[in-house]
Amino acid sequence: AQQRILTHNEVNHHPKLILTQKGVAEIKSKLGSIPLFDTSLEEAKAEIDAEIRLGIEVPIPKDLSGGYTHERHKRNFLMMQKAGVLFQILEDDTYAKYVRDMLMAYAKLYPTLPIHPQERSYARGKLFWQALNDSNWLVYTSQAYDCIYDWLSKEERDVLENDLFRPFADYISIGNPQFFNRVHNHSTWGNVAVGMIAVVMDDAELLDRALHGIKDDNLPKGMRDDDGGMIKKEGQKVGFYGNLDEPFSPDGYYTEGPYYQRYAMYPFLIFAQALQNVKPELKIFEYKDGVLLKAVNALLNLTDVNGDFFPINDAQKGMSYYSRELVTCVDIAYYYGGQNPELLDIAQKQNRVSLDDTGLSVAVAIKEGKAKPFVKKSIELRDGQMGDEGAIGILRSDDLELVFKYAAQGLSHGHYDKLSFSLYNAGQEVLQDYGLARYVNIEQKGGGNYLKENTTWAKQTIAHNTLVQNETSHFNGNYETGSQHHSEKYLFDVEDKNLQVVSAIEENAYPGTKIQRTMALIKDADFENPFVLDIVKVNSATSNNYDLPFYYLGQLLQTNFKYETPKTLTQLGDSNGYQHLYKEGFGISDGNNTSFNWMLDNTFYTLTSVTSKGDELVLARIGANDPAFNLRREPAFIIRKKDKKDAIFVSLLETHGSYSPVSELALNAYGQIKNIRVILNDEAYTAIEITSKNNKKWLFAMANNNSSDDGQHQLYINDTTVKWEGPFVFKPIN
Amino acid sequence: AQQRILTHNEVNHHPKLILTQKGVAEIKSKLGSIPLFDTSLEEAKAEIDAEIRLGIEVPIPKDLSGGYTHERHKRNFLMMQKAGVLFQILEDDTYAKYVRDMLMAYAKLYPTLPIHPQERSYARGKLFWQALNDSNWLVYTSQAYDCIYDWLSKEERDVLENDLFRPFADYISIGNPQFFNRVHNHSTWGNVAVGMIAVVMDDAELLDRALHGIKDDNLPKGMRDDDGGMIKKEGQKVGFYGNLDEPFSPDGYYTEGPYYQRYAMYPFLIFAQALQNVKPELKIFEYKDGVLLKAVNALLNLTDVNGDFFPINDAQKGMSYYSRELVTCVDIAYYYGGQNPELLDIAQKQNRVSLDDTGLSVAVAIKEGKAKPFVKKSIELRDGQMGDEGAIGILRSDDLELVFKYAAQGLSHGHYDKLSFSLYNAGQEVLQDYGLARYVNIEQKGGGNYLKENTTWAKQTIAHNTLVQNETSHFNGNYETGSQHHSEKYLFDVEDKNLQVVSAIEENAYPGTKIQRTMALIKDADFENPFVLDIVKVNSATSNNYDLPFYYLGQLLQTNFKYETPKTLTQLGDSNGYQHLYKEGFGISDGNNTSFNWMLDNTFYTLTSVTSKGDELVLARIGANDPAFNLRREPAFIIRKKDKKDAIFVSLLETHGSYSPVSELALNAYGQIKNIRVILNDEAYTAIEITSKNNKKWLFAMANNNSSDDGQHQLYINDTTVKWEGPFVFKPIN
Ligand SMILES: [Ca+2]
Ligand SMILES: [Ca+2]
Ligand SMILES: [Ca+2]
Ligand SMILES: [Mg+2]
Ligand SMILES: [Mg+2]
Ligand SMILES: [Mg+2]
Ligand SMILES: [Mg+2]
Repeated sequence: AQQRILTHNEVNHHPKLILTQKGVAEIKSKLGSIPLFDTSLEEAKAEIDAEIRLGIEVPIPKDLSGGYTHERHKRNFLMMQKAGVLFQILEDDTYAKYVRDMLMAYAKLYPTLPIHPQERSYARGKLFWQALNDSNWLVYTSQAYDCIYDWLSKEERDVLENDLFRPFADYISIGNPQFFNRVHNHSTWGNVAVGMIAVVMDDAELLDRALHGIKDDNLPKGMRDDDGGMIKKEGQKVGFYGNLDEPFSPDGYYTEGPYYQRYAMYPFLIFAQALQNVKPELKIFEYKDGVLLKAVNALLNLTDVNGDFFPINDAQKGMSYYSRELVTCVDIAYYYGGQNPELLDIAQKQNRVSLDDTGLSVAVAIKEGKAKPFVKKSIELRDGQMGDEGAIGILRSDDLELVFKYAAQGLSHGHYDKLSFSLYNAGQEVLQDYGLARYVNIEQKGGGNYLKENTTWAKQTIAHNTLVQNETSHFNGNYETGSQHHSEKYLFDVEDKNLQVVSAIEENAYPGTKIQRTMALIKDADFENPFVLDIVKVNSATSNNYDLPFYYLGQLLQTNFKYETPKTLTQLGDSNGYQHLYKEGFGISDGNNTSFNWMLDNTFYTLTSVTSKGDELVLARIGANDPAFNLRREPAFIIRKKDKKDAIFVSLLETHGSYSPVSELALNAYGQIKNIRVILNDEAYTAIEITSKNNKKWLFAMANNNSSDDGQHQLYINDTTVKWEGPFVFKPIN
Repeated sequence: AQQRILTHNEVNHHPKLILTQKGVAEIKSKLGSIPLFDTSLEEAKAEIDAEIRLGIEVPIPKDLSGGYTHERHKRNFLMMQKAGVLFQILEDDTYAKYVRDMLMAYAKLYPTLPIHPQERSYARGKLFWQALNDSNWLVYTSQAYDCIYDWLSKEERDVLENDLFRPFADYISIGNPQFFNRVHNHSTWGNVAVGMIAVVMDDAELLDRALHGIKDDNLPKGMRDDDGGMIKKEGQKVGFYGNLDEPFSPDGYYTEGPYYQRYAMYPFLIFAQALQNVKPELKIFEYKDGVLLKAVNALLNLTDVNGDFFPINDAQKGMSYYSRELVTCVDIAYYYGGQNPELLDIAQKQNRVSLDDTGLSVAVAIKEGKAKPFVKKSIELRDGQMGDEGAIGILRSDDLELVFKYAAQGLSHGHYDKLSFSLYNAGQEVLQDYGLARYVNIEQKGGGNYLKENTTWAKQTIAHNTLVQNETSHFNGNYETGSQHHSEKYLFDVEDKNLQVVSAIEENAYPGTKIQRTMALIKDADFENPFVLDIVKVNSATSNNYDLPFYYLGQLLQTNFKYETPKTLTQLGDSNGYQHLYKEGFGISDGNNTSFNWMLDNTFYTLTSVTSKGDELVLARIGANDPAFNLRREPAFIIRKKDKKDAIFVSLLETHGSYSPVSELALNAYGQIKNIRVILNDEAYTAIEITSKNNKKWLFAMANNNSSDDGQHQLYINDTTVKWEGPFVFKPIN
């Protein structure tokens, strides 16, 4: 007989999972008086009423994502979840019948289904091509079932549980241990799906399976999934707790990056809410020092000014905190996380709330005028279970946001992009991270799945604004090697908001080569906007070629160097992503600074770089060897230093001026920099001199071996002794 | 002695040019009570007060546009004009002194100036590199002078008139007859500059020169400017009236296109306002059936939903009805053109008004709530002095705007683009006209002037969505030949807003070849949005290769044909613009329809085309032979029919569905068309059958030799007789 979660005498009353009997009573008492809740409810009602008019369709599974049966089953679970909620709040049987009839159709279909006919996944579902999507279905459908549980007859419940829910939960867990017993956002969905239905059905064994995984999965150690991701590591903790422990850092950063964190946060938080409702003694929101609530804060800080997530690792651009998952996140974080009034600012922008206790509390607080602006500051989000595996460092100053990645590999969705960065101006990408090579759910493009260019291009090092050695990717593009390492933070200092500096070291990407990148975002009255100072210091035991690309967006206006443009375009290299770049232009440095001036969105940009005589300057464009036009034809400027053991790349990026196509006025179209120069670069110190066009000079100097705040330093530069305390200094030297 | 404009006894009171004594009194009486006027005044005051604090600078002329001295002198005249107005309205001597001091500085500098050192123009100025810009200066400065005229002493006026204004007016007219005595927007500025200062100084001879040109200019007939534009045609009428007669059609379309019309409208209208003030007997606003007022209406209709002008001929994208010139246009058109309340809608969007009688009247009417929505409808704007030289036909339906050009050459800024079109969806270009190859006032790009790629690319036929024969441009790219011809309208019928059709014929672009293009914008309940049907019918005496390009913007998703992508990119052809295209992909039709599906701005598009076995399908990209990166790397899809005398290109463009990167839902990502087929195509009739995926069929048929509305037609098609009245029919045939 089934082991119950409830104690002996308790009755299995519903709703209990996300909605509660008490919560529903509270909602009903306030209906019509809380604007944001009322409009969210009206929207859901309008959507579901229209859907009910169209009738129920439960087709035989056939398609990949983007195709009809996939999208239909996906829509079905979203509709059932909302219909269940509407039944609870509005007490209208129409909604309960809709859910029941659809569930009964599924209960009739499910036992007849073979494994899904599409063979692309390492863990195929039955309704969908991946067990992942089957799990999505169960996470939402459990909520619908919970809402109509008491309204159904015992006989109806027996049919649903015996023919549908139990076999469904078993199939995605015991039937697919390689999916269920893993640390991966997909597995989290599987765990939570089983946990949610366990709570509704009051099944202790299933709940235990959800929380702790399958006891004996017989999976071979070192097994991998179809795109090379590790499935099972020796001694790995699995289940919901396993997925909570390992991928989240103490700062709430999720190692796969914000795009997948957004995707994973829904099951994490919705299940946490359920656990808080039925097993408050677990204190799930306090687990690991409140990591689930910190994760919401981390996610919100990983967005640009428009709310778009920074596209770290595999990530489709445009995903944002306006997604339905983030509505849930924000409402739950507000309710369970101490009612932070800044979250109300985001909720206002989202302009809808969850139809439960958490959404009601947000809507009430907004009505009461409690919202305060959510101000994003510079922040370091450490990676790794213990927070000691590098970090994402975000520097913010005025309209600029600089995202610097010195984190761990990021599981199977990670890119080989150690010490890469991207830059945003008022939400516009200026120096981009390419993102992924995928058109999610657009069937025309490979069924909406990962395209092969994701591996051959998007993950490769050359696809990023970071150093490439000898045209190979970091860790030779080997996932297993990459997963064993992470970059090391050297310093992250944003105390002085006019002089924010982050610096990190990578010693494993290319064995024998040490790379230290230091990025400063400096605000000075002599410059119209804050500028970026970028120092990449390379030391190697062997001679190598080094490439440093800048994936600028916009229209090239002017360079201060001569370049040839070839008559025919050929690929820049043979492999590791280079085969996807065309060589559009080629110049050689005369030893002076290289200046690269462009325009984007009616703003001007100038990148000034220290180059040595003979350094190669490549103008490249993405798109070679792209037979299906999967890649965007976007440009890059690459600085190449050849046959060097040690090298230093120093660049200064200015944002300046404006252009109006209406007034046709160009203001401040040129940068302010006359010259930058490396004064000193040795094992202990690096010093850069910056000269502006009006002949002001500044010194940026740093200690390379002592990041302590109270270290005392001095250098003898230009016949003067410069002294400072702490790891770096920036000062005028005229 | 100077001949006066005023009669013997009249005193030369000021202001009289744009502001009038009566008008100023009216403005003063209403100050503080008319919001839009008050804020416009405050903005001007804030701008001028800041400028006065910075002090006066009148540098020695040196730079091209974009450079310091150019921009400084340009800013000076704009500032003086506003300061003059502020002096009149606010009666604060500060503004008069500012204007006087600056004018005196110019009076001191001007006599010392040689011709401008930059040698690029065929008519160099003294303050600026072109006499054009000197004329701009005088048009604005005359207004400033008028405002402080009475406040100055006789001695001061004598200095200004003798040392500055008279020599200035003479230099841009008698000193540059090749500029002044011409029909061209530049010349209009010259004429008006002389006319404006004539009115202020009360000089009848100068006014006559402005209105009718220089009597004997000794210019050789057939002379050309530095970019090939014709200067003097035999027997040409010149001066202000000459420029009013020839380039404007009876519909108010200006043959150079809206970008230059916008530029020319300011001098046309501001001088018309002056003439109305001082010589109302000329009835200038009634001249040529009110063409100046019709021109404002034409201009506003030549904008997309955002107010951006369609980039016809040489035109920089982004110029819009928010420009300062259009503020003047709208206010003058409202005041002198019968107070059309729809103009107030545009004025509200512009959110500022002219600081004179016209602006006051607009602001008062807006305050009184008189504004009505400016609704842009489908419209044909005829070209040519008599309106018989073709036209621009604009079809509008829901969010779609189709711009079809079957006009005359468009003077020296014209492109070789007979029967070309562009398509907009909600203000977004979908099938683009490239525009010009120039970065106006961006000094980094060739001083902000026309780039050589404007000639080698932007003007060429292959740069447009129209038919190219044998890889040559229309009229062999010869301006003189092109100027002798225009396309012929066949029909323009927008009576049925669900079936709007325009058709035109070009017989001169390629001698011996007749091209008829018919474009229909059809709204039918079976389609999500209106669709475009495009029929290009070609008949030639000789065998030729025909290319029909579609410059789509966005991301290619899927084609139904196979194509090869070359390993190295080479140019598509050798000349006539083909040298600027890379061949990125190449396929050959198997004789079935060709389907081309792409995404732009989260909307899907599908172009379905009838192709014959062996037709070549080229995926091209702009950017070859572009050594300074002057061109945008944008794509095209080209259908090529080889070695044919007669040919017909039939394409159907659908706009459909949507994608959200936030919900990741793709809706209606595929087109509805299963097949299109040419049923009949002979000298007399063309008939197309359209079949949708749900097997509905429609017939579009047209008579090729009878565009009369009451022509009776019948065809025997698919065992049925189809009868209709008028030139075309569209109907279901299931
Ligand atoms: Ca990346
Ligand atoms: Ca953004
Ligand atoms: Ca054009
Ligand atoms: Mg954004
Ligand atoms: Mg993966
Ligand atoms: Mg020209
Ligand atoms: Mg637009």
